[in-house]
Amino acid sequence: MAGTGVFAEIMDGDVFQYYADNEWKTSLSGKTVSIINPTTRKVQYKVQACTQEEVNKVMETAKAAQKAWAKTPLWKRAELLHKAAAILKEHKNPIGECLVKEIAKPAKDAVTEVVRSGDLVSYCAEEGVRILGEGKYLVSDSFPGNERTKYCMVSKIPLASNTGRCGCTPHDPLLPPGWFPKGLINCVTGKGSEIGDFLTMHPGVNCISFTGGDTGIAISKKAGMIPLQMELGGKDACIVLEDADLDLAAASIVKGGFSYSGQRCTAVKVVLVMESVADTIVEKVNAKVAKLTVGPPEEDCDITPVVTESSANYIEGLVKDAKEKGATFCQEYKREGNLIWPLLLDNVRPDMRIAWEEPFGPVLPVIRINSVEEGIHHCNASNFGLQGCVFTRDINKAILISDAMETGTVQINSAPARGPDHFPFQGIKDSGIGSQGITNSINMMTKIKSTVINLPTPTYTMG
Amino acid sequence: MAGTGVFAEIMDGDVFQYYADNEWKTSLSGKTVSIINPTTRKVQYKVQACTQEEVNKVMETAKAAQKAWAKTPLWKRAELLHKAAAILKEHKNPIGECLVKEIAKPAKDAVTEVVRSGDLVSYCAEEGVRILGEGKYLVSDSFPGNERTKYCMVSKIPLASNTGRCGCTPHDPLLPPGWFPKGLINCVTGKGSEIGDFLTMHPGVNCISFTGGDTGIAISKKAGMIPLQMELGGKDACIVLEDADLDLAAASIVKGGFSYSGQRCTAVKVVLVMESVADTIVEKVNAKVAKLTVGPPEEDCDITPVVTESSANYIEGLVKDAKEKGATFCQEYKREGNLIWPLLLDNVRPDMRIAWEEPFGPVLPVIRINSVEEGIHHCNASNFGLQGCVFTRDINKAILISDAMETGTVQINSAPARGPDHFPFQGIKDSGIGSQGITNSINMMTKIKSTVINLPTPTYTMG
Amino acid sequence: MAGTGVFAEIMDGDVFQYYADNEWKTSLSGKTVSIINPTTRKVQYKVQACTQEEVNKVMETAKAAQKAWAKTPLWKRAELLHKAAAILKEHKNPIGECLVKEIAKPAKDAVTEVVRSGDLVSYCAEEGVRILGEGKYLVSDSFPGNERTKYCMVSKIPLASNTGRCGCTPHDPLLPPGWFPKGLINCVTGKGSEIGDFLTMHPGVNCISFTGGDTGIAISKKAGMIPLQMELGGKDACIVLEDADLDLAAASIVKGGFSYSGQRCTAVKVVLVMESVADTIVEKVNAKVAKLTVGPPEEDCDITPVVTESSANYIEGLVKDAKEKGATFCQEYKREGNLIWPLLLDNVRPDMRIAWEEPFGPVLPVIRINSVEEGIHHCNASNFGLQGCVFTRDINKAILISDAMETGTVQINSAPARGPDHFPFQGIKDSGIGSQGITNSINMMTKIKSTVINLPTPTYTMG
Amino acid sequence: MAGTGVFAEIMDGDVFQYYADNEWKTSLSGKTVSIINPTTRKVQYKVQACTQEEVNKVMETAKAAQKAWAKTPLWKRAELLHKAAAILKEHKNPIGECLVKEIAKPAKDAVTEVVRSGDLVSYCAEEGVRILGEGKYLVSDSFPGNERTKYCMVSKIPLASNTGRCGCTPHDPLLPPGWFPKGLINCVTGKGSEIGDFLTMHPGVNCISFTGGDTGIAISKKAGMIPLQMELGGKDACIVLEDADLDLAAASIVKGGFSYSGQRCTAVKVVLVMESVADTIVEKVNAKVAKLTVGPPEEDCDITPVVTESSANYIEGLVKDAKEKGATFCQEYKREGNLIWPLLLDNVRPDMRIAWEEPFGPVLPVIRINSVEEGIHHCNASNFGLQGCVFTRDINKAILISDAMETGTVQINSAPARGPDHFPFQGIKDSGIGSQGITNSINMMTKIKSTVINLPTPTYTMG
Repeated sequence: MAGTGVFAEIMDGDVFQYYADNEWKTSLSGKTVSIINPTTRKVQYKVQACTQEEVNKVMETAKAAQKAWAKTPLWKRAELLHKAAAILKEHKNPIGECLVKEIAKPAKDAVTEVVRSGDLVSYCAEEGVRILGEGKYLVSDSFPGNERTKYCMVSKIPLASNTGRCGCTPHDPLLPPGWFPKGLINCVTGKGSEIGDFLTMHPGVNCISFTGGDTGIAISKKAGMIPLQMELGGKDACIVLEDADLDLAAASIVKGGFSYSGQRCTAVKVVLVMESVADTIVEKVNAKVAKLTVGPPEEDCDITPVVTESSANYIEGLVKDAKEKGATFCQEYKREGNLIWPLLLDNVRPDMRIAWEEPFGPVLPVIRINSVEEGIHHCNASNFGLQGCVFTRDINKAILISDAMETGTVQINSAPARGPDHFPFQGIKDSGIGSQGITNSINMMTKIKSTVINLPTPTYTMG
Repeated sequence: MAGTGVFAEIMDGDVFQYYADNEWKTSLSGKTVSIINPTTRKVQYKVQACTQEEVNKVMETAKAAQKAWAKTPLWKRAELLHKAAAILKEHKNPIGECLVKEIAKPAKDAVTEVVRSGDLVSYCAEEGVRILGEGKYLVSDSFPGNERTKYCMVSKIPLASNTGRCGCTPHDPLLPPGWFPKGLINCVTGKGSEIGDFLTMHPGVNCISFTGGDTGIAISKKAGMIPLQMELGGKDACIVLEDADLDLAAASIVKGGFSYSGQRCTAVKVVLVMESVADTIVEKVNAKVAKLTVGPPEEDCDITPVVTESSANYIEGLVKDAKEKGATFCQEYKREGNLIWPLLLDNVRPDMRIAWEEPFGPVLPVIRINSVEEGIHHCNASNFGLQGCVFTRDINKAILISDAMETGTVQINSAPARGPDHFPFQGIKDSGIGSQGITNSINMMTKIKSTVINLPTPTYTMG
Repeated sequence: MAGTGVFAEIMDGDVFQYYADNEWKTSLSGKTVSIINPTTRKVQYKVQACTQEEVNKVMETAKAAQKAWAKTPLWKRAELLHKAAAILKEHKNPIGECLVKEIAKPAKDAVTEVVRSGDLVSYCAEEGVRILGEGKYLVSDSFPGNERTKYCMVSKIPLASNTGRCGCTPHDPLLPPGWFPKGLINCVTGKGSEIGDFLTMHPGVNCISFTGGDTGIAISKKAGMIPLQMELGGKDACIVLEDADLDLAAASIVKGGFSYSGQRCTAVKVVLVMESVADTIVEKVNAKVAKLTVGPPEEDCDITPVVTESSANYIEGLVKDAKEKGATFCQEYKREGNLIWPLLLDNVRPDMRIAWEEPFGPVLPVIRINSVEEGIHHCNASNFGLQGCVFTRDINKAILISDAMETGTVQINSAPARGPDHFPFQGIKDSGIGSQGITNSINMMTKIKSTVINLPTPTYTMG
Repeated sequence: MAGTGVFAEIMDGDVFQYYADNEWKTSLSGKTVSIINPTTRKVQYKVQACTQEEVNKVMETAKAAQKAWAKTPLWKRAELLHKAAAILKEHKNPIGECLVKEIAKPAKDAVTEVVRSGDLVSYCAEEGVRILGEGKYLVSDSFPGNERTKYCMVSKIPLASNTGRCGCTPHDPLLPPGWFPKGLINCVTGKGSEIGDFLTMHPGVNCISFTGGDTGIAISKKAGMIPLQMELGGKDACIVLEDADLDLAAASIVKGGFSYSGQRCTAVKVVLVMESVADTIVEKVNAKVAKLTVGPPEEDCDITPVVTESSANYIEGLVKDAKEKGATFCQEYKREGNLIWPLLLDNVRPDMRIAWEEPFGPVLPVIRINSVEEGIHHCNASNFGLQGCVFTRDINKAILISDAMETGTVQINSAPARGPDHFPFQGIKDSGIGSQGITNSINMMTKIKSTVINLPTPTYTMG
């Protein structure tokens, strides 16, 4: 597919170009990075392996672009973002196809994700107008000992220059040239070993927003004074109480645990179910697992190959460990290449690795508990703290358990979920730093500047 | 009691003085208004019957005082309010006793109310510092077509002069002289027929905050452009579902329905209980009603005389109507003077007056319902819309019913309640206008003033 | 023009229909109201004279529509408003022409106003999503004496049903049928004597937002408990100090005083200039006045006929009074029909009516002052308090004078202005009640509802 | 002084103890750290040199304490802080004396600082109640594609455990035992080489708030995912324009440049004055410098010894460099021990170190500029970006220059200042990360937790 259709013009031969100065460019390195299709396990795309020199240049133009952008009326910035969102949605099919080939996302879901991204950009545009357009106005005489001789005008202004330059993947390339200030938006691709740390510690960087796992923690150790927003791993627990709507719980467990083959930070990653309803839940879940389709993303299968071979191997390691330690296999373990069949592991115990580690694949452990406290304790003993969920009809238990679970979010009677995208989204402990969601993300990418008008004599506003 | 102790110095003979110019004064009218003790039905106190002339003078000094106050540093205003709160709490006993004698409030509750009022004043002080001390700072380029040439600084400033001059009762008199600007705080007493409308329509009035019933509606028709905050009647429904914690529900119904003899705007005023649990609820409530003590407020009885004889007569009218139309009397109806024994009326039907009207006394109707919808319908068919409550263990039902009830607040699994005092508190329909609670009340008593700095050239904040 | 083009389908013969039930209808009254063209002084349009019966019906359907609307997802409500805004802007020319014919607005300005209205609707859509979509979440233990057993969820919800039904003019009719719930948006026309008070006091009304003069005050006296937003008259003062940029001040005075022939609530309505620079200011203003074009709005003249003959007569009365009392006429007074030539009156003194009254026409008084205090005093002695402006280069004087002026807004170094439309906009004293601007207006049209979850035991959120 | 009076009970011999478990303790290390009095250059105090083991224990109890604290009603937490503030203020004299001896702060200023700290604690208490007591309540249907089936309740909760454990100095010891949960507040002293990095990288740490210079940058490199609040160095510029009030500017320069001998992060650290008024400013400043008293802090001298000998040597290095490169010395350079006489250096040029480096002493460079742009350019070329100030009477210049200066705050017509303490306070570039001021600091020490109630069917709040 590469090199045809809408992407044709942004390729040099069979290699995607990188984006800088509002132009698509070929790296002077002469080298490329290969993107492997998880399904075929063959090279699907090639992208430029940019050099440190090229990174430097991008940073330089970005700095200038940011100043121009910061002097553009807010409504105009929003208008441009709305246009970009519309183009993104217009090209949902070719971009969606990239997701299919690059990360084996089921075709329909891939397209849905592009549309949602467009909606997100639009929502950001309007939210940005409000966050950057409204500051605080403080008076000095709130604090003991002061007369009102000082008026303080407080603004939020963007952290200068190129925010969010990490995590760029080759599916952004359709942003049209000629609108945004030259250099405002860039997409540099390359090898981590060559430009990874170089980017992290680049003096031109003003903010790092990163989604990932151990790499995020490594970045945080090199970032120094740069503000960080990190969304890392998770081990989201699903607590099921006796009084839960068990059909709802089972459906949520399957959707939460196996959507996109379990490769979501907010996937259900461990089920903590009260013994008395455990058999029923396991049975109901198994019935639904049996109906999951397994195969290539192009055919919209529910379960598709996991993103890399090393990921598949890691999952297999967890499964073997559980096997050895006596977990009950509700389905036979089956793997072909990167494709792993969905698997529910019952009677998992805390001494098994899968009780604590994140498979990021279609394998879901069930731990039977004898009290709510046991469930909360397991949840809070994790190094992760992204989300959790609890199924109960009881309003008191729902709230009390939510308060007790040490995670960034608790879902009552639904699987963990990132969206809707204006909701706050955050992990604690090793799951992340800062809070996402549109409003929080924009706020995180701003800093405060205040101007104080000092007056020769106290004054109080009359009216 | 009058004329002794802490109140001695604010009396002229046996008549309480009025407060103006930071002084206690005797009206030139030579007339007084009598305050009847609901228990003894005899004159307990006399207060001044001020003249329109005296009202005019108070308004005049208040206007000047307000200007001085508006030019006092916020922290100093807070400091004075904290001091006033401390004094109020220090005199909780004599002031509480006034409540006992004037409105037959049980002695302990009366003292608790004074302490809570002191806490409320302190909380107001700190909230006021924040509301008046922090405005908005807006830029012009949020709106299409505008460059950033305008900075708008938005403040909240007090509605000028003497807010809240209505509803003053003679138990405020202990505010010490000499602190607040002369004339800032006044307490004018008099006959409604003489100075009621005169006050309402006085050109010096900037805000009316009123708690009461029909009088509030009458005031609203005369107030014209003056901002109003009204807390009027209520017919708070208590919906009890099959799955409710019935002990909790019964306890809440008794507390909600009979505290202070049902004379609270947020009293439970009608119980809507599912037929299948109605017998149980009624039985449990009756068991608790049987334990209520009945008698004088000085002895801390649960049920004390209602505030006026006309109120007692009105209640009796509702009871008789229910009797005639076939309501089941769980207790015998009993009245001595203003003292009415607590009474639960079961099997009340919509054709009885007590299904819709507010007794403001210790008489509580129970309507048996066959569906949740029936309960919501009854609640929403009321002209009132203060609060409501629903007892259920089910989180979904709790939220869905709360959303469906057309009242200012819905309490889930508790009786209606005004407090804690920083929570919003509001009635809809005939129950009121505006929202109370500390923050909302202060906001309601402010207006907005903005200053726009217009610049010769667009400018954008760098940093 | 009526009956042709885009409006043809909403007319019955030569009479515009009224809009209800998502349909254009002819009143059963058989009567019409005539709209006079200020330029020709002949009937330009006719609109339906609706009956009280028809008003009742509209109210009824509006109530039902509001419920449906309140159950529409916020983003969908916004989407519909964005569409409506786009249609409004698409028809800017025919709608603009209505403004030309109905109120003699210069043609270009009329079209600009329609575009701005469309932008305003769009901005409202996004602001509405945010105001209605984000409430507060409070805990009980902020207030002394409380444990954390109560969680209070506070929402803003729309004041039910048809807000803002007053002030509808016949230039709204292009809202397309079939989108908004039937009955949500209505446009009823009629005679004030027949349906004016009837509307004001209609039990179906939940909010009144009105722009006008004495009528607003009359409405406020009949509205009772209905929330009011009133934008009434103004006498905006322009204070010019010695150190001002006199060219800027003169240009602002001419633009502020004579745009749309002075018929704007925020027109400069009195100039208060320091004696030492008064001659220069008057000279500069006169030079610019001399260049103003006078004539029909169709030719985009600066000065066009005032809206009614009675308005022209009222203005003439003020001019004659000033003449008699010795004001200096910088231009000869000239009038033809409703067309009044622009006139600057120098040396106006406080005993002249025009020093205090609002001409709402192209006549501007200049009062020479000897101190800043004199200027502020004149400004604050007015019954009005909409906006004011001050011209000075000095930052201290600018802020101190702004604080001292008792008006809703003070513009520093620019003429008074309503926009940009997201800025707060409010008058005090007789100039209005409440605050406008998009955010404040939406807030004003909401009320608060809270849901309190009461828990059996204190709980504190961990994480 | 040590060992007497109020401090006697917290000493072991002549060594101050450390505070943990609500007790004063002696380290098992048997070692101490000496605190040198800058004036006498002799050991004034000794504090415990705690071990890593002891740090571990403190962390452990702190963790437990934090949980207890997080379950204390907010009003009670505030009450305890108010008490602590009162005790702090009550002991203002002995604590102030510590500041005199430890950092040579002039006696009166030292006492003032203690009082201000008490006020700050009280203000924090009330602000904390509000920040932790009020969250957001969001609905799902704000975002495209969503019905209202999710209610999201968003709280701010404390970053767990012992925040702000760095920067503890021995003048905190008076916090009374027995109130706060055991282990909530600790004061561990020790050698940086032994427990500095150990603390920074301790897994028990949840937040680091640090004030200092290079050490802060070093900490940021070791902190990884721990949220940081850093207030580091500054080189606050004071721009003086031709139209400035030169007396005000000169007074502010002397106060801003020489208070506490220039050892304030917000000291004026370089004067950028327009050539045409430079002679006058220099003359006026010199006249005031001549009146500064120089000597020991106990005598309330204006200029006292700088905190360390190495600091004095560093300052001397900057002075010598300026001398060599031709700066004009307005006073003779004079030093005795750590005491350096106040010195204004005129005609400083960008090639001198003192044009860019922060002396943190009573030496102030003046750079003459020929345009505003030159001044802004010098300011923005700095690696620091704490505050800046501009002196001008012109409102347009004031705002435009403030917008152009790349610092956290710009003061118009006053010296840079940290307070009043509820104002935001932040540095950009190497001056810091995050924002301080009471509200921002508390916010920074919180994280977000959300609870989402998922409902089986869409619901919309009626009322």
